[in-house]
Amino acid sequence: MDQKLQILLDTTKKLIRRGATPNLTKVVEKTHPADIAALFNYLDPKEQGVLFGLIRNAETAAYVLSEIDHSTGARLLQELGREEIRNILQEMPHDDAVDIIRNMPEKLAEELLSIISEQAADIEQLLSYHEDTAGGIMSTEIFSLNENLTAREAIEELQKSAENVEMVFYIYVVNEHNHLVGVLSLRQLLTVPAQTPLKDIMTSDVISVRPDMDQEEVAHLVAKYNILAVPVVDESNKLIGIITVDDVIDVMRQEATEDMYKMAGASEEEAFHAYSSFKIARLRLPWLIVNLLGGVVTGYLMWLFKATLANVIALVAFIPVITGMGGNVGGQSAAIVVRGFATGRVDFSTLGKLLFKEMRVGLIMGLVCGLTLAGVAFFWHHSPMLGVVVGVAMSAAMLVAATMGVLAPAFFKRLGVDPAIASMPFVQTANDITGILIYFATATLFMPYLR
Amino acid sequence: MDQKLQILLDTTKKLIRRGATPNLTKVVEKTHPADIAALFNYLDPKEQGVLFGLIRNAETAAYVLSEIDHSTGARLLQELGREEIRNILQEMPHDDAVDIIRNMPEKLAEELLSIISEQAADIEQLLSYHEDTAGGIMSTEIFSLNENLTAREAIEELQKSAENVEMVFYIYVVNEHNHLVGVLSLRQLLTVPAQTPLKDIMTSDVISVRPDMDQEEVAHLVAKYNILAVPVVDESNKLIGIITVDDVIDVMRQEATEDMYKMAGASEEEAFHAYSSFKIARLRLPWLIVNLLGGVVTGYLMWLFKATLANVIALVAFIPVITGMGGNVGGQSAAIVVRGFATGRVDFSTLGKLLFKEMRVGLIMGLVCGLTLAGVAFFWHHSPMLGVVVGVAMSAAMLVAATMGVLAPAFFKRLGVDPAIASMPFVQTANDITGILIYFATATLFMPYLR
Repeated sequence: MDQKLQILLDTTKKLIRRGATPNLTKVVEKTHPADIAALFNYLDPKEQGVLFGLIRNAETAAYVLSEIDHSTGARLLQELGREEIRNILQEMPHDDAVDIIRNMPEKLAEELLSIISEQAADIEQLLSYHEDTAGGIMSTEIFSLNENLTAREAIEELQKSAENVEMVFYIYVVNEHNHLVGVLSLRQLLTVPAQTPLKDIMTSDVISVRPDMDQEEVAHLVAKYNILAVPVVDESNKLIGIITVDDVIDVMRQEATEDMYKMAGASEEEAFHAYSSFKIARLRLPWLIVNLLGGVVTGYLMWLFKATLANVIALVAFIPVITGMGGNVGGQSAAIVVRGFATGRVDFSTLGKLLFKEMRVGLIMGLVCGLTLAGVAFFWHHSPMLGVVVGVAMSAAMLVAATMGVLAPAFFKRLGVDPAIASMPFVQTANDITGILIYFATATLFMPYLR
Repeated sequence: MDQKLQILLDTTKKLIRRGATPNLTKVVEKTHPADIAALFNYLDPKEQGVLFGLIRNAETAAYVLSEIDHSTGARLLQELGREEIRNILQEMPHDDAVDIIRNMPEKLAEELLSIISEQAADIEQLLSYHEDTAGGIMSTEIFSLNENLTAREAIEELQKSAENVEMVFYIYVVNEHNHLVGVLSLRQLLTVPAQTPLKDIMTSDVISVRPDMDQEEVAHLVAKYNILAVPVVDESNKLIGIITVDDVIDVMRQEATEDMYKMAGASEEEAFHAYSSFKIARLRLPWLIVNLLGGVVTGYLMWLFKATLANVIALVAFIPVITGMGGNVGGQSAAIVVRGFATGRVDFSTLGKLLFKEMRVGLIMGLVCGLTLAGVAFFWHHSPMLGVVVGVAMSAAMLVAATMGVLAPAFFKRLGVDPAIASMPFVQTANDITGILIYFATATLFMPYLR
C-alpha cells in the first residue's frame, strides 16, 4: 500500500469511528474513485457499509462496485433503496452489473434484472454466459461503424457518440449485417483524406474471440498480440461485445492468485470472498483430510518395516529429511509445470523434454544431497553402511520426486482437470509414500551389513 | 497452445528437419510476427537459429526479438552480420534493444552500443536504470505536444508524426520546459472546436511515476487506475518516457511466475532462461541444502527422544502425518500472505487481522484433523492414550503451523527481503521442527499413561 492510500485509510477509519459524516462526505467527494475502491479492501464490513452509504454520486458508486469483489458489492448495494440501486446499476458496465446481481438473494436479483432488462436487451444474453468465459467478461457497449462510411463521417459519429462507450482506441468496422469485417485505430482515421471509405483504411485481418472461450485463453491472446481490446463475435461473425485490456489485467491477476492458492492446497474460492473462518476451514479441509490419510498410509508403510527399524533405531533419525527433501524437489518441478501450463510455455509437445530435464536436475541435486547426507550419517552414527543406505535412498527419492512433480500435473491436465490441483500437498504426500518405501527397501536390502 | 499454433509449429519443425529453406521462408513471410515469436518458445536452440536466420524483414525480426527472452535474443542476434544487427536494432524500441545488448559479450555490447548511441542519445540514459524499474521498462519514444497548440494543430502534428512512436492513445501535454502538465485522449481532441488550445482541454491531474519505481508497483498503479499508459517523469517533472499497458502485462506475468517459482523453492532466474541442468541444479541447491540441514535437525531432535520412541514404538507411525500436515497448513497460510503482499491486498496494517483469522482457521482444521487422527490411532493401536497424544499434538502443530505461515513471510517483508523467499520448503522445514517438538513433548508428558 502506498503512503497516500495509507493516510487516506487512517483518515477514513478515524472519521468513521467518530461518526463525522459531513467531513467524511467531503473526503469522498475529493478522492479519485479508484482510491475509494482501494479503501474497501482494508475496511471491515461495517465500515464498508458506512463509507458506501456516503457516496452520493451514482457514477462514483458504480465505479467502486465495478472494482471491488462482486459479493461485497452485492452486500453493499442491497442496503440502498430501489431507486438508488437502479440509478447506480444504470451507470455500470452491464457485465459488472450482471455479476453483482448474481450475488444477491434470488428474489431481489430477479426483481432487479427485470427492472434493468427493460433498458438493456443484452442483459438476458449476458446472463447466459459463464462468468469465466469471454462472454462473461465482455462489455456489450461497443462502438462500431459501417464499412461504407467515410473517414469524415466516422469522425462525426465519434463526436456524437455517447460518453459511456468503453474506452475507444480501436474502431470496429461492420457490414450491413453487423458482421465484423475490419478494425482501424483512431489515429489511422486522422491520417487519411476525409473522403476515404473505412473499408479502404481498415485492417481486415481482425483477431476476435467467441463468447465461450475461457477467460484465461483470452488473456493469453491479448498478451501475445499486444492488443488493447479484442472483439467478441458469435458463430456467424456478428459483433456482440468487446473485452478491453483492463479486464484482461484483472483476469490475469485473478488467475495467478487462484493458481498460487491451489498450488498451496488452499481453495481458490476464498481468494475473492470475505468468508468466515469456518467456511474457509470447510473449503480447505477436504484436501487436508486426503493428505491426512496419505500421511497415515505413509505411517502404516513404516509400521510394516518396524522390524528393520527396531534393529537399527538410527534409521528413524533420517525419516524427516528423506520425506521432506522428496517433497521439496517434487514441489519445485510441479510449480514449474503448473505455471508453464498456465502461461502456455509448457504443453504436451514439449513435456517430454521438460520431464527429462527435471529428471536430470533431480538426479544432480539428488547426488549432491545424497552425498551430503551420507557424510552426516557416517560422522554422526559412525556407520559407513548407514551412510550408504541414506545416501542411496536420498538420491533415488529425489529423482523419483522430480519425475512425479512433472507427471502429476500433466496427468491431471490430460484428464481435463486443472493441473494446479496437483498441488504441493498432493505431490508431497505422494512423495512421502515413495520416499518411505525407497528408504526402507534400501535399508532392508542392506540390513545384513548394517550394524 | 492453440491448434493454429500447433499446426504452425509442426510445419515449421518438419521444414527445418528437411532443410526446406524456400518453403520455410514463405511460411515466415505469411505468418503474424506474434505467432513467429511464439514459435521460439517451442524450438530448440538450433531450430531457433535456423528460423531466425530466415526472417528477411528487419521489422519482423525486431518484433520477434522484443517478444522472446532477452538472452535468447542476444544469442540469435550475434549470429548475424554487423550491418544486419544494426538494421534490426534500429527497428526496436530502445528499451528492448538495450536489454538485449546487455545480454551480449562485453566487447560486442560496447561496439553495438556505440553504433546505436549515435542515433539515440537516450541509450546511455536507459542503461543507467535497473532492469526491474520503471526506467528499465519505459520507452523513450514519446508523443508529446506543447500546451499552447490548438486542437487543429495537434491533429496536424499527429498526422506528421513518425509511424514508430509507440501506440498513441493518450497525448501528453508539456510546457516550454518539457515539464508534464496534462494529458488528453485522442477522442477529446476530436470533440472540441478546432481553435481550442490544448491547455483548456487537457486533464491536469496526471498520474505519473519516477524512473526508479519498482516495475511491480508500476503494474499495481496501471491495474488500479485502469489506464493504458503511464508517463515517466524525472524529479523536476520533465517527461522522459512512457510505459504502455502491454509492457505492464509482461511485468505482471513475469512477477507472478517468479513468485510461484520462489514459493516452490525453485529459483526465479531459471524461469526466463534456457539454462543447462547443471546450472539449474546449482541455482536450486543452496535452498535445498538449507532444508537438508533443517531435516537433519528435525531428525536430531527425534533422536533426543529415542528413549520415548523405544518405549512406545507405535509413536513412530505418526511422525510423517504430524510433520506433513503442519507443513501443508503452514504452506497454505504462507501462500495467502505472499500473494497478498504481491497484489497489495495484504499489508502490515491488515496483517494482525489476517494472522488471527489464519490462526482461527488453523485451530478449526487442527481440531478436525486431530480428532480424526486420534480415532485412527485408537482403532489401529487400541490405545486411548495414544489417541489423545496424537490428537493433541496434531491440533497444536496445525495451529502453530498456521501462525508460522503468516509470520515468516511478514518477517522477511519487514526485513526488506522478498517475502516469497518464505517459501513452502522453508515453512515446511520450520514446521517439521516445531511439529516434532510438540509431538514428542506431548508424548513424553503423557508417557506414564501410555502403555
